[in-house]
Amino acid sequence: MAEFKHLVLVKFKEEVAIEGVLKGMEKLVSEMDIVKSFVWGQDIESHEMLRQGFTHAFLMTFGSKDDFTAFASHPNHVEFSSTFSAAIEKAVLLDFPAVTVKTSSDDHKDH
Amino acid sequence: MAEFKHLVLVKFKEEVAIEGVLKGMEKLVSEMDIVKSFVWGQDIESHEMLRQGFTHAFLMTFGSKDDFTAFASHPNHVEFSSTFSAAIEKAVLLDFPAVTVKTSSDDHKDH
Repeated sequence: MAEFKHLVLVKFKEEVAIEGVLKGMEKLVSEMDIVKSFVWGQDIESHEMLRQGFTHAFLMTFGSKDDFTAFASHPNHVEFSSTFSAAIEKAVLLDFPAVTVKTSSDDHKDH
Repeated sequence: MAEFKHLVLVKFKEEVAIEGVLKGMEKLVSEMDIVKSFVWGQDIESHEMLRQGFTHAFLMTFGSKDDFTAFASHPNHVEFSSTFSAAIEKAVLLDFPAVTVKTSSDDHKDH
């Protein structure tokens, strides 16, 4: 079964204390076993023209689409989403079954 | 050392044969050992308002920022990028050192 990815790109509002939002997100993820993995990052390379104002990417991995659906509707996530939404100027969300073309030798093999 | 991620979100042009572009990308990645892992997906969940027209996400992982820089300037990548650019209506690129908050038990541990 394909893993399911939840990808969020955002531009935070200028006045927002990003560290606090990140801590909230880490707390949410650490409390919910249904989140299989979570990686994020702040762009340091891409030209402004290419990143179009987006500064941060957040990527959560779930074991299945059902797990993602359960996560998305969980009260902890709903509560955090409301805080998160207030902190961002814009966002793009993509949710998709992961097609793994290549994995490093020390990662989990899907095939 | 932190892994480095190259994230690309795109909307393909309507007349484009996406399968062909995907095959070209898989070929590029399989030929270049410097690409540590490659996962992609087509959004099936997010509302149009949330995905803002973007339909596909591509995520490559490198062992370091230097590896990414070497990949980006490699002739194979430069050649593919020109084909890729012609196939898309819009894109967002983010390049960032990965902050791994959580990994599944069978994945590589960063800390």
